[in-house]
Amino acid sequence: MNVRMQRYVEVMNTRGLDALALNPGPSLIYLSGLHFHLMERPTVLLLSRSGRAVMVLPELERGKLQGAAAGFIACAYGDDPAAWPAAFAKAAAALGLQEGRIGLEPTRLRYLELQYLQEAFPNVDFVDGGAILEALRILKEPVEVEKMRQAARIAQAALLETLKHVETGITEKALANELVVQLLRAGSDPELPFQPIVAFGESSANPHAVPTDRALRSGDLILIDWGAGFEGYFSDITRTFTWGAMDPEWQRIGKAVLAANRAGRAAGKPGLDAGAVDRAARAAITAAGYGPAFTHRTGHGLGMEAHEAPYIFGENDLPLAAGMTFTVEPGIYLGGRGGVRIEDDVVVTADGLESLTDLPRQVLSVEDYLLL
Amino acid sequence: MNVRMQRYVEVMNTRGLDALALNPGPSLIYLSGLHFHLMERPTVLLLSRSGRAVMVLPELERGKLQGAAAGFIACAYGDDPAAWPAAFAKAAAALGLQEGRIGLEPTRLRYLELQYLQEAFPNVDFVDGGAILEALRILKEPVEVEKMRQAARIAQAALLETLKHVETGITEKALANELVVQLLRAGSDPELPFQPIVAFGESSANPHAVPTDRALRSGDLILIDWGAGFEGYFSDITRTFTWGAMDPEWQRIGKAVLAANRAGRAAGKPGLDAGAVDRAARAAITAAGYGPAFTHRTGHGLGMEAHEAPYIFGENDLPLAAGMTFTVEPGIYLGGRGGVRIEDDVVVTADGLESLTDLPRQVLSVEDYLLL
Repeated sequence: MNVRMQRYVEVMNTRGLDALALNPGPSLIYLSGLHFHLMERPTVLLLSRSGRAVMVLPELERGKLQGAAAGFIACAYGDDPAAWPAAFAKAAAALGLQEGRIGLEPTRLRYLELQYLQEAFPNVDFVDGGAILEALRILKEPVEVEKMRQAARIAQAALLETLKHVETGITEKALANELVVQLLRAGSDPELPFQPIVAFGESSANPHAVPTDRALRSGDLILIDWGAGFEGYFSDITRTFTWGAMDPEWQRIGKAVLAANRAGRAAGKPGLDAGAVDRAARAAITAAGYGPAFTHRTGHGLGMEAHEAPYIFGENDLPLAAGMTFTVEPGIYLGGRGGVRIEDDVVVTADGLESLTDLPRQVLSVEDYLLL
Repeated sequence: MNVRMQRYVEVMNTRGLDALALNPGPSLIYLSGLHFHLMERPTVLLLSRSGRAVMVLPELERGKLQGAAAGFIACAYGDDPAAWPAAFAKAAAALGLQEGRIGLEPTRLRYLELQYLQEAFPNVDFVDGGAILEALRILKEPVEVEKMRQAARIAQAALLETLKHVETGITEKALANELVVQLLRAGSDPELPFQPIVAFGESSANPHAVPTDRALRSGDLILIDWGAGFEGYFSDITRTFTWGAMDPEWQRIGKAVLAANRAGRAAGKPGLDAGAVDRAARAAITAAGYGPAFTHRTGHGLGMEAHEAPYIFGENDLPLAAGMTFTVEPGIYLGGRGGVRIEDDVVVTADGLESLTDLPRQVLSVEDYLLL
């Protein structure tokens, strides 16, 4: 039994659950090494508290049960959905669980799998097992942090190449496409954490803007929020630029956001609560007079998912611990006018927060930025 | 009320449900035009059988409720999850549904949203609403078919550019990355239907192969399964090539798969069952002596999702109707040696099946293929 499975058994024994039911996604990969797509065919790993593994999967995918998964009991089914309940019934028998509690991953398990599971385990209670997976995955092993560091390097190299393509008239969509091309060329996994946000001018006021055909004009803000994947681990960075001369108010705002980013990155260390990072970043923006314009939490956990625990909002009393990884991304948004965000990825060390991202953070014109 | 919502109200009234609960994804886009990411924050549209719309969403996303969604009642919440149940309770009150039945989309709705919904609607039964969404989305409007046609054109142009980069020693990963670059350059949406499959030699025997560092050698089969997105609609194509001389057995197999692809595309028309397409393709492969080596169904529906209804397996007695769109993708796989698949996208017309994809289908060397 490998180290992750040993920790799984330990955690399960403290939580009073009899098994977890996992479907395709990061937690399944984390515990089993198995990669599946989340599709219309239900694919579920039932993992008992002692580590017994029973898997319901399409016959077509059975070949994936090799290596560490060679000992899994496979309950495979064909293309006719009428036969799928029988595969789940066989899995229930193989797991040998008549009653008790099975945990589910709330952000991943769907009503599709839940229906088959409830039919196959009529006397079992299905409960929220998210905290167990969070407890396992929130503390990154050094090898995981190294993959995130590489995902950051790839993203940073791709951005610098992409900035060379900025020119008056280029659209948000075209620049975002160029960034994706550069991410792949720089060695990113094809699965990105999210499609890059490229927002010009007034669009940058929307933290979740989607690139459009808006063309770049002189004097525009350019907000780029992007990331790379490396062996299943993600980076997630934001930098903000201007195209041409910079309005004095945006210079002030850029400095306020930079101060907030620094304050957030200086505020975390083992034993302090996650909320301290948010409160420090927010205080810097409030001190600059823009408190209400910082409309979102300061960050979110990052790793195998673009958003995961720990979430960095003021009320979060979760104690930080070495090995946690998250974003620090304060912003100031003026509706209809524009916005600035500066986002880094950090890991909690024994001393504080170390940034995995080190591209210059200043808000400058693209031309000046490329001279740094 | 637009045409889609009128059909929604009609279908709901025949199914005896009081409302649907939709979370981010194609069905939400189809009925509301609203694009959201599926993340850790629950985002749910409650749509009553009369078309009353109440939406639970992050405060940060409230700005998306414009245009057709301007009349939606918004129940927005902030970053602290402790406050999220109150937003769902407010939505339940706004919907005015004390008891009855709410339908869920099984392949989309997660245990996360289900928990909040069950707490907010303690006396409501949650049931499988998948058939309702399937009934609405399975018959494509002409404008949807046109988008799929454009997604096919983009994918085909990208493949022809990519083939120019094939050379001895290139890896599956490098060729797959080049194909993604060419898809974006040819005008694909950044969201692809799936990451391209590029499989050389023995890897082509795995229908769901993932590109690796395997380098191309003379005499290899090259199987490429890829697609593009255009305004939210997908294409999904497979072609198989050789690099250098072609073994006589693979020539025979290539012809058998081509015959099966043709037979499948000739076998569908309005009123016949979906299974007829599978049975015709399978009969051609069985006649060539390779029946057991065709290990999967002949196809799947295609549109806003890479896999959707109708599914093309022998037992499917669903009657085909004009406007349905799906793939026809027979294959022959010899474990440890290689495989051939030829996949097209078709739309059911009054007369039969029209292929939206028209790249040459023959299994040839890359060199000969580029001369066609």
